[in-house]
Amino acid sequence: MKNLKLGIFGFGCVGQGLYHVLQQSNAINSEIVKICIKDLNKPRPLDKSYFTNQKDDLLQNDDIDVIVELIDDAEAAFSIVSTAMNNGKSVVSANKKMIAEHMEELLALQEKNKVSFLYEASCCASIPIIRNLEEYYDNDLLTSLEGIFNGSTNFILTKLLTGGQTFDEVLKEAQNLGFAESDPTLDVEGIDPKYKLCILLFHAFGLIAKPDDIFNYGISKINTFDINYAQRHNYSIKLISKCRIVDEKIEAYCLPTFLPNDAVLSQTNNEYNAVILETAFAESQLLYGKGAGDKPTGSAVLSDISALNHDYKYEYKKNARNHGKLALCEDFKLRLYVRYNDSTPPLEDFESIEEKYASKQGNFLVGTIQLKHLKHSNWINEASISLIVLNN
Amino acid sequence: MKNLKLGIFGFGCVGQGLYHVLQQSNAINSEIVKICIKDLNKPRPLDKSYFTNQKDDLLQNDDIDVIVELIDDAEAAFSIVSTAMNNGKSVVSANKKMIAEHMEELLALQEKNKVSFLYEASCCASIPIIRNLEEYYDNDLLTSLEGIFNGSTNFILTKLLTGGQTFDEVLKEAQNLGFAESDPTLDVEGIDPKYKLCILLFHAFGLIAKPDDIFNYGISKINTFDINYAQRHNYSIKLISKCRIVDEKIEAYCLPTFLPNDAVLSQTNNEYNAVILETAFAESQLLYGKGAGDKPTGSAVLSDISALNHDYKYEYKKNARNHGKLALCEDFKLRLYVRYNDSTPPLEDFESIEEKYASKQGNFLVGTIQLKHLKHSNWINEASISLIVLNN
Repeated sequence: MKNLKLGIFGFGCVGQGLYHVLQQSNAINSEIVKICIKDLNKPRPLDKSYFTNQKDDLLQNDDIDVIVELIDDAEAAFSIVSTAMNNGKSVVSANKKMIAEHMEELLALQEKNKVSFLYEASCCASIPIIRNLEEYYDNDLLTSLEGIFNGSTNFILTKLLTGGQTFDEVLKEAQNLGFAESDPTLDVEGIDPKYKLCILLFHAFGLIAKPDDIFNYGISKINTFDINYAQRHNYSIKLISKCRIVDEKIEAYCLPTFLPNDAVLSQTNNEYNAVILETAFAESQLLYGKGAGDKPTGSAVLSDISALNHDYKYEYKKNARNHGKLALCEDFKLRLYVRYNDSTPPLEDFESIEEKYASKQGNFLVGTIQLKHLKHSNWINEASISLIVLNN
Repeated sequence: MKNLKLGIFGFGCVGQGLYHVLQQSNAINSEIVKICIKDLNKPRPLDKSYFTNQKDDLLQNDDIDVIVELIDDAEAAFSIVSTAMNNGKSVVSANKKMIAEHMEELLALQEKNKVSFLYEASCCASIPIIRNLEEYYDNDLLTSLEGIFNGSTNFILTKLLTGGQTFDEVLKEAQNLGFAESDPTLDVEGIDPKYKLCILLFHAFGLIAKPDDIFNYGISKINTFDINYAQRHNYSIKLISKCRIVDEKIEAYCLPTFLPNDAVLSQTNNEYNAVILETAFAESQLLYGKGAGDKPTGSAVLSDISALNHDYKYEYKKNARNHGKLALCEDFKLRLYVRYNDSTPPLEDFESIEEKYASKQGNFLVGTIQLKHLKHSNWINEASISLIVLNN
């Protein structure tokens, strides 16, 4: 087993937790050599000699084998990660945005430099979903993957459905508890889980999809009327990210969804995440664990470092096998609940309307619509309209 | 990728399902060469030329790379598996009894012959728990593993707690549905899950434990009185297998347990299995899936064959690291509900008694007892006594 020398970018809670665990554990034979941070004057729990604000002190340092990238800014992270790989260093990252947006370049960098790039922490924090897709669900029997990929919105939805708090109150609570990202928009508009869906699409089916190719809709417009609807029908509301193969094409989206209260994903509450995998033979399987927070994220980073001790690399077998064979499709139907206040959505966009309800408190319809019509329509962006999938 | 040639022992439902999936899937580049069965005259869904009743037609066949062992008899299976490995063949097996009882010899055979021996299907069928312990939880941060490892008893307990059926009625139903093993004793007395616990103990902590070293207690004596107690307290009853590290020693057992109805494992019903892993950093994580049935078992066998295509071997890193350092201990306390009809259990065996209840319908006590006293006592075997763990 190797004695890996680590260079870490960013020393927030995840980085600090990582430091403490590396000190406690005998099994992960690695030591931190240098830590690059922005502010050298901030008090730190470690000796000053560990810190630098010069990235080349890590990237050009021959003593460092592995770069652990734990910063927020996706473009700065991509620059760090590219340089590290070009300098022959393996990399561990938790930056879902960077990975989702640069997957193709990151693949090329790994191949060209014969280095390993691991990012388990980028998806569902503590749940080892990427490793399981790579290593265990590596044949073509997987047909569907769906789940709750965002701890902060799941916390908000759990509170909204149980308490009597407003969206803004609950969002603030999530931020105070450290479950929300620095920009809450990424969470509440369903963009963060979409990044994760892109990454998992690649490991599940070998498909490189750009975040812009996948339809997402957030939870920020969900109001008391919607919550009453859910409660009356014994539903939860969950922000579901989903992809599945249908007729050699891939359907994928990230949308708020009503689920029966006794569904497994309805019982995934607060900051927990869950992933359900459907395979031809094993039927449905669930992986469940904490999806937000420093420790769960740190645990995934740690497992990646541990894997590098054993020269582990993602083999991207599905990419090799499915390359170009599977594509995203927009020709599939969604059964939707659409809540509106003033202007009725254009009914001609729908294939069928099952229900229409109007009252002083609000109006809704339940209908079936093609994803392609939904995705390219403008009415869905109106402030008074909220979309929630029903039984899909 | 290789084109593996398979020789299969046993052609029950798992073997047949495996055959069909291998035909459908392009990803698993393997073909069945020969199948060894007992009864050549039984009608089969495949051409006669595939079948033999001579084991050497497979074991001495140079065209066969991998032996897939799917028979019931543990000793016959061990003989097949040993010969196969000694002949340079890799082996896939689902035989928990054989593996739990012969772990040390099976390790030596792998090492001596430089072959791979995979057995994901032996534990919790479709749940990839061995692979996750080997590959992801391979550092020393895992502190506890517990769960429901037996689908047939879980089916029985689920029905007992909800319906108004007797134990025998429910057992019959489980057998009709194919969830019970050929000898129900192994399931209902908690022996089958104990075999699995032995295997998982090894992959979780590197400890080789013999099945006889681990205390187990079955569910066959659970009666209406116990079920009423559970219902009155909003408990489920689950047959829990558990192991954890406490002060460098390992506590392990397999015992019926009362769990609050809202506990994750209480929501694991019918033939489903679940495993909860506790780690220093990620806190608790859950893997959940079907733990009995032909397809879930077949899916695990298939994933092992798929892994052999990529030359996968278990590395037994924990064994290398912990060898001899961790031992089972019997010096730990259990909080128990003991139900008895006539003779009171010897109260001096208990460290403390919290409750005692007597009525015409039955009597129980709640007390704390050391595992070593429990394990070596005779009163626990009386027909009128039932033990269920409380809050442990």
